Amino acid sequence: MQQLRNISVIGLGLLGGSIALAARQRLPGARVIGYSHRASTRAKARDLGVGTEIVDDLATAVGAADLVILATPIFTFEGYFAEIAEHVCPRCIVTDVGSTKVMPHQWAERQLDVRARYVGSHPVAGSEQKGVEFARDDLFYQARCVLTTTQTTDRTAVTPLKTFWSALGCSIQVMDPLEHDRIFANVSHVPHVLAAGLVNASDDGDLKFAGKGFLDSTRIASGPPTVWTDVLMANSENIADGIDRTIGELQKLQKAIRSKARQEIEQLLAAAQEKRSALVKYKIRRKELLS
Amino acid sequence: MQQLRNISVIGLGLLGGSIALAARQRLPGARVIGYSHRASTRAKARDLGVGTEIVDDLATAVGAADLVILATPIFTFEGYFAEIAEHVCPRCIVTDVGSTKVMPHQWAERQLDVRARYVGSHPVAGSEQKGVEFARDDLFYQARCVLTTTQTTDRTAVTPLKTFWSALGCSIQVMDPLEHDRIFANVSHVPHVLAAGLVNASDDGDLKFAGKGFLDSTRIASGPPTVWTDVLMANSENIADGIDRTIGELQKLQKAIRSKARQEIEQLLAAAQEKRSALVKYKIRRKELLS
Repeated sequence: MQQLRNISVIGLGLLGGSIALAARQRLPGARVIGYSHRASTRAKARDLGVGTEIVDDLATAVGAADLVILATPIFTFEGYFAEIAEHVCPRCIVTDVGSTKVMPHQWAERQLDVRARYVGSHPVAGSEQKGVEFARDDLFYQARCVLTTTQTTDRTAVTPLKTFWSALGCSIQVMDPLEHDRIFANVSHVPHVLAAGLVNASDDGDLKFAGKGFLDSTRIASGPPTVWTDVLMANSENIADGIDRTIGELQKLQKAIRSKARQEIEQLLAAAQEKRSALVKYKIRRKELLS
Repeated sequence: MQQLRNISVIGLGLLGGSIALAARQRLPGARVIGYSHRASTRAKARDLGVGTEIVDDLATAVGAADLVILATPIFTFEGYFAEIAEHVCPRCIVTDVGSTKVMPHQWAERQLDVRARYVGSHPVAGSEQKGVEFARDDLFYQARCVLTTTQTTDRTAVTPLKTFWSALGCSIQVMDPLEHDRIFANVSHVPHVLAAGLVNASDDGDLKFAGKGFLDSTRIASGPPTVWTDVLMANSENIADGIDRTIGELQKLQKAIRSKARQEIEQLLAAAQEKRSALVKYKIRRKELLS
């Protein structure tokens, strides 16, 4: 199997910074090269010891890489793919850590062509924080990482990439990008829209009385708007459909509440409670959640 | 000011148990009498040292009380008020800890009449757990407690009740029950419906990929369905209106997402982020939330 000795991380925000920190710690002997287009971010990354070296231009960053990981905003991927294609060695593996995967595959196919082997990655980790100063070397520990492949994917790239993410602590699933985007619309992107909608529907004066329940339900609404705008733009149809399904469930509950149909309300709440309780048990069993 | 030396807690679940534990600790010298209609709960409460004594019948529980606190399900209040009215001393203060306040006031007015002075209480504390075994003496520490009064409320009861909740660690606000129910529909009851709706709209297979964001957003959906059914029944109009407002915000976001209106999506997400960030700062300043 191909050894990944030169790893290049493009984009040094929370995710890119954490990948570089974790790779440096978990893959001793590997060169972990970091690049950000912002000089101030590069300076911070150097101070924080993110990666084994931080370089000032993209060509240098990717020129010797066995693996290039794009951790920049989704809608910059196509441009980066085009630029990377000019500089990478043949047989370099290229991936990204975007939260949607259909569009990255399309861009990679268009821009990378045969110069590099592209596989999508989505490490399911992060927080509502933003910036390299929040990077952590344990961000991927016991997280899932979904790899995405299509019929045109060069399969020889999958195993080395699996090994890489496993070394960072991830458990890996491989799936089609279409399936990925449908699933993550439902479990991540729609919940984000709901949290934002709930906050926007709330009156400032009323919010003074909000307790822990409200704060927890809306935590994800504190995520960076630019990052999330990209996600919502890049997976719009699945998300719009998911919002419809959720509105349908809300209207079902609303109808039962308006007509004070005790039995129906209780059935709907009990169904949600049982489903979530089964999920929590599953997550604890898989050690994705502490008991 | 009236001294509350004999405190009676009716209903020994998470809330009642925590009140009895906290009162015993924070009000040395006071008798804290606990009662539950279930023998098994009374036995557990005795084992856990909840209250200074646990008694087997309601008449004994409330006969000598200066303050009776109802911590039973909302729709049992009217029956308890009627029964309590027969046994309490004149000038006893009666309150409840229900999460809705309009209906408890109506029931108290109907059943307690002049035999006791009723003021509503809503200590904004709790968790998705249920039962006396989860009772904690610090549940009310730095929590808010809303007291509700109407034009017919005997005002002499308000100050002793404020003193009681303050001793347990609460900060107190007094308001009208109508205002209370409108506010808490928005910051607590509607979020609960949303969490349940989101879980119910989710596919079991997809949920395996849910991360911390989904779990936090839906934590409140693990609350006890019977307790929450009561809340939704007792505040149905405000909640139905709040669901409408939230659906309106979701549709606004959905429309922007469907039409890929980047600027509008980002504005809506940024508005939510800023509003929540202001709320978090406010809560930290008031020490209701750790920084």
